[in-house]
Amino acid sequence: MTKFLSDNAAAVHPAVWHAMRAADQADNPYDGDALSAELDARFTDLFGRECAALWVATGTAANCLALATMCAPHGAVVCHEEAHIEVDEGGAPGFYLHGAKLIHAQGEGAKLTPRDVAAVIDPIRDDVHQVQPHALAITQASEYGRTYSPAELETLAQFARERSLGLHMDGARFANSAALLGGSAREAARAACGTVDSLAFGFIKNGGMNAEAVILFDPEVADQVRYRRKRAGHLQCKGRYLAAQILGMLDGDVWLANAAHANAAAQEIAHGCGERLMHPVEANELFVRLTATEREALRAQGFEFYDWGEDAARFVAAWDTRQDDATALGKAIAAL
Amino acid sequence: MTKFLSDNAAAVHPAVWHAMRAADQADNPYDGDALSAELDARFTDLFGRECAALWVATGTAANCLALATMCAPHGAVVCHEEAHIEVDEGGAPGFYLHGAKLIHAQGEGAKLTPRDVAAVIDPIRDDVHQVQPHALAITQASEYGRTYSPAELETLAQFARERSLGLHMDGARFANSAALLGGSAREAARAACGTVDSLAFGFIKNGGMNAEAVILFDPEVADQVRYRRKRAGHLQCKGRYLAAQILGMLDGDVWLANAAHANAAAQEIAHGCGERLMHPVEANELFVRLTATEREALRAQGFEFYDWGEDAARFVAAWDTRQDDATALGKAIAAL
Amino acid sequence: MTKFLSDNAAAVHPAVWHAMRAADQADNPYDGDALSAELDARFTDLFGRECAALWVATGTAANCLALATMCAPHGAVVCHEEAHIEVDEGGAPGFYLHGAKLIHAQGEGAKLTPRDVAAVIDPIRDDVHQVQPHALAITQASEYGRTYSPAELETLAQFARERSLGLHMDGARFANSAALLGGSAREAARAACGTVDSLAFGFIKNGGMNAEAVILFDPEVADQVRYRRKRAGHLQCKGRYLAAQILGMLDGDVWLANAAHANAAAQEIAHGCGERLMHPVEANELFVRLTATEREALRAQGFEFYDWGEDAARFVAAWDTRQDDATALGKAIAAL
Amino acid sequence: MTKFLSDNAAAVHPAVWHAMRAADQADNPYDGDALSAELDARFTDLFGRECAALWVATGTAANCLALATMCAPHGAVVCHEEAHIEVDEGGAPGFYLHGAKLIHAQGEGAKLTPRDVAAVIDPIRDDVHQVQPHALAITQASEYGRTYSPAELETLAQFARERSLGLHMDGARFANSAALLGGSAREAARAACGTVDSLAFGFIKNGGMNAEAVILFDPEVADQVRYRRKRAGHLQCKGRYLAAQILGMLDGDVWLANAAHANAAAQEIAHGCGERLMHPVEANELFVRLTATEREALRAQGFEFYDWGEDAARFVAAWDTRQDDATALGKAIAAL
Repeated sequence: MTKFLSDNAAAVHPAVWHAMRAADQADNPYDGDALSAELDARFTDLFGRECAALWVATGTAANCLALATMCAPHGAVVCHEEAHIEVDEGGAPGFYLHGAKLIHAQGEGAKLTPRDVAAVIDPIRDDVHQVQPHALAITQASEYGRTYSPAELETLAQFARERSLGLHMDGARFANSAALLGGSAREAARAACGTVDSLAFGFIKNGGMNAEAVILFDPEVADQVRYRRKRAGHLQCKGRYLAAQILGMLDGDVWLANAAHANAAAQEIAHGCGERLMHPVEANELFVRLTATEREALRAQGFEFYDWGEDAARFVAAWDTRQDDATALGKAIAAL
Repeated sequence: MTKFLSDNAAAVHPAVWHAMRAADQADNPYDGDALSAELDARFTDLFGRECAALWVATGTAANCLALATMCAPHGAVVCHEEAHIEVDEGGAPGFYLHGAKLIHAQGEGAKLTPRDVAAVIDPIRDDVHQVQPHALAITQASEYGRTYSPAELETLAQFARERSLGLHMDGARFANSAALLGGSAREAARAACGTVDSLAFGFIKNGGMNAEAVILFDPEVADQVRYRRKRAGHLQCKGRYLAAQILGMLDGDVWLANAAHANAAAQEIAHGCGERLMHPVEANELFVRLTATEREALRAQGFEFYDWGEDAARFVAAWDTRQDDATALGKAIAAL
Repeated sequence: MTKFLSDNAAAVHPAVWHAMRAADQADNPYDGDALSAELDARFTDLFGRECAALWVATGTAANCLALATMCAPHGAVVCHEEAHIEVDEGGAPGFYLHGAKLIHAQGEGAKLTPRDVAAVIDPIRDDVHQVQPHALAITQASEYGRTYSPAELETLAQFARERSLGLHMDGARFANSAALLGGSAREAARAACGTVDSLAFGFIKNGGMNAEAVILFDPEVADQVRYRRKRAGHLQCKGRYLAAQILGMLDGDVWLANAAHANAAAQEIAHGCGERLMHPVEANELFVRLTATEREALRAQGFEFYDWGEDAARFVAAWDTRQDDATALGKAIAAL
Repeated sequence: MTKFLSDNAAAVHPAVWHAMRAADQADNPYDGDALSAELDARFTDLFGRECAALWVATGTAANCLALATMCAPHGAVVCHEEAHIEVDEGGAPGFYLHGAKLIHAQGEGAKLTPRDVAAVIDPIRDDVHQVQPHALAITQASEYGRTYSPAELETLAQFARERSLGLHMDGARFANSAALLGGSAREAARAACGTVDSLAFGFIKNGGMNAEAVILFDPEVADQVRYRRKRAGHLQCKGRYLAAQILGMLDGDVWLANAAHANAAAQEIAHGCGERLMHPVEANELFVRLTATEREALRAQGFEFYDWGEDAARFVAAWDTRQDDATALGKAIAAL
């Protein structure tokens, strides 16, 4: 079987294994080890803006720890109605933000524009009976595999500032957007990140095992997050193995190469999809119109993937997807 | 330097590495993989009682997820005043239990007896102005390296039932108590666990990397915990690497052998301590009366350890402590 | 000026004042007084089902205390997208339910049918990534002044049982629906209540000062609510003044007479509205299509009311609305 | 029977009734009415410092709303181990502060000094494993009827500033301390309040019905409290009746006269107690050593009061305690 189910269950990249093994001697516990101590500087260098970087085991925790710095319990976070934090995190924002609300905006391709956000927050009366928006959360790449351009990000950031909203980026597939935008690692990272206030920088779907990075561009709030990470039971005592994973991905720009590889595989598949594509392919996910019969036909050829509603399927390419398999899938779809 | 600082930063045992590497191909994400699916049965077999077993990355999360099943937000958990959940988990119980209270009991060696618990809950008026106790949390081995005997556990369990208190065991060093109590793996596990309602079974300090097991002896509540684990951001998508760690420790009873090794090292040290011991050594930790000068002398010989207040030190033996080093430390203390 | 702004700021009914004054000597504090002790029996008699009844100062608190008995922090409450708990309670459900989610259903006139509810909960995957529905909240009379019939309530209750959902009724204007459904006080109360699990029985908008009743038809959960009421700072030490208000409204069926009066006034107004009515008038609220110019004309005649969007107005009749004023308003609208 | 049980169930003062009746016509709902609008200015004038003042129905809510402005969910509030917020508020701080911790200090007469506070916070390690103190809560008059002098308050305020702790005063019996310190209403209020950051100014025990005032001396945080008050279900729609109570007590300094009266009655009783007094009488409460036999003898004479442990009793004088009754009680005790 050739799996295009999800990148979230892929194997771990050799560079990550290598880095973890290299960390296999006692060091200070928690985040007191030498590897964890490197993170702030490494991400500050990557993004060209001073930031704090904390490892955490899941994207859900990363998103929620960041959001909690910018939305009070009595406030709300605006996000797309199909955002992962709304739909697929088991209510984690409600837990971490102590009952704050998510306000659902609509936008094409699970992306948001200032107009989309204004449509849901402008009608909110400025009184205590209605929950006021405190933050805005976007996803890069979006839940439909779309990438915000630097210009779109700048427009959103400006809007957020005007409305006094914190701006958080769920970057579970941040690397794929960065790879799409192109350039060196620094150029790509900066283009994909824009000037958000915080970023959940995903490594797990891109070859890591269980380490994501919460990037806080206001280092003053990082201390609060350190306390909240512990309080959430996310401060691992052998944290060096998480720091190692992240550093193993940063060294030699493995993160960017892996994402570029997955993106290329997605493009291979896209070549065969033509009009069937529901969204432009701007990362490593494809949403493809396929009837039940067509899906059955593909599965009979050994391709594994998820249905997407009744008339479509989702394919995800990963860092370890073989280009041959991607090409074969593209051809199989084209041949339907 | 020879480190007796803590077992919480020790290296990862080869059997754990081996099991993790063996899990390095795509499987179903989250806890849908083959390895995670084994856990319930494996622990049910070990403990001889039906149970559900969920992996989670830290002992703090394990404790809090279990406690949340037995204490409502408006209730309280009774624990020792020096319990880890009270002193060292950054307020995690307050977070996971939505503001429930911890009631502090006193007891010798950080252990609790029914009398100790009754002393703090009997004065609580049965009215809405005072927070009522819902659960009791004990630590095996205790924060001072003491082990509850099966008889002590049975007395506590009976007391908890009489008072309608849930009974949770923080087993960060559960294996060390089990090893002390002796017998086969099954005998040791059952002796150390008694009939508690839930157990946070620690593997990390005993050779694991970042996987503990929450054991729920009422499988009906396990579903609730599965939702809460996700909600807390603790459901890793590549959960098979955590299941693998636990299974790697269960296979061949590595968990018991590692703990027995650490306990033996602790006894080696204890031989040299005589009257200096503040607590009987019933696991892998030693609390030893040592003046500042004496501690300095030991450090000058290359021993690393933490001060324990002004006039004592704590030494912790780990699964990878060399017996020679332990012997040497015991002799060095004896020679002071 | 003749006020049709809202019933929520009306004066206090003489019977309520009388009852409060009669309570003006020391009694046991909190809810230990003689008046508070009467409540359970009085409402059990009224509804013909065993229940517990607790006073509380606001409808928001009443709703949230009840909902917290049927929805865990990791669950969700289904409600209409324009439900008061979603739109106008400042996020109180998120606070009282510790981050539980509200799921928004659509339904005509802010009422819900099983089909409306199924439309939003059937698509929820039964896995830990999605928040599962635990409860259903309806409003009687609805936010658009609509009344659920006994048959509609029975259908909903059956649906809720089938789906294992708790069923709560926000009855801020419960009396108005009861009055509409008609019959004796017992008949009206039972018809309007159906077999919900809990009811926030509103008295404030109907002539009370600051006392609502939380009615819990599962008396076993009432104890939990008593603890939670205290924990929320809603256990007043001179609670007898709240119990007095409620009893003052129950005695002589003042609650029903007041509501009937307000309903009648609303019908007076409705007579003049004809096709302008956006919703059938089944309680004491009217939503009337009126242009800005028309609204201005009415205000110039001394009528006070709120705009409802750009092209409509809301009029609310209260227990103390004079029928003459209502008739005059109806005529004024008809004359536009 | 002559009641010395508590001031918390006393009747309502005529001035309060009068003010409430005067408010009995429709005005803007919630806190949009003319009376609520007066509060900020009235308390600013009283205290001579700019402040915001919000009514709320209970002292528990008042304390918790104020504390939530100065202690994050991951922080702690230091209070006396017998403080009302710790012992008698049903865990409300845990609810309102989203799981923040209370740290228990010891101090004579339920008062705290900087030394008392330092004794519990100095040992807290400055790391994420331990909950850090964010705020300090004191009670004026204390739970044992003791009054902080202006000098003591200044020392505490300075200490709080040095340690970056917010400083809150639970003033359930603030008026009694003010009356003890003496002078005009302004002088007394300022002397009793010192420079705390927030005050829960109690009126209910002193002749009110169900309105306390949360005083926030940093008006910038008041907006946050307005949102949180609504979110806690404490924004009453007919709020004018609460504002009226407070204004009725402020007008003509009724609050101060009532407290002075109660204090005087307490002194009457104290005259008969001599060495039996467990604490100096500095407000309206007395804690008196009395054997069970003695207590029985007093009760046989018609005096009602609570036992205080096994060998003592608590007597509370209220605004409506008759001096004759107080004198009689004092004599009865002296005659034992």
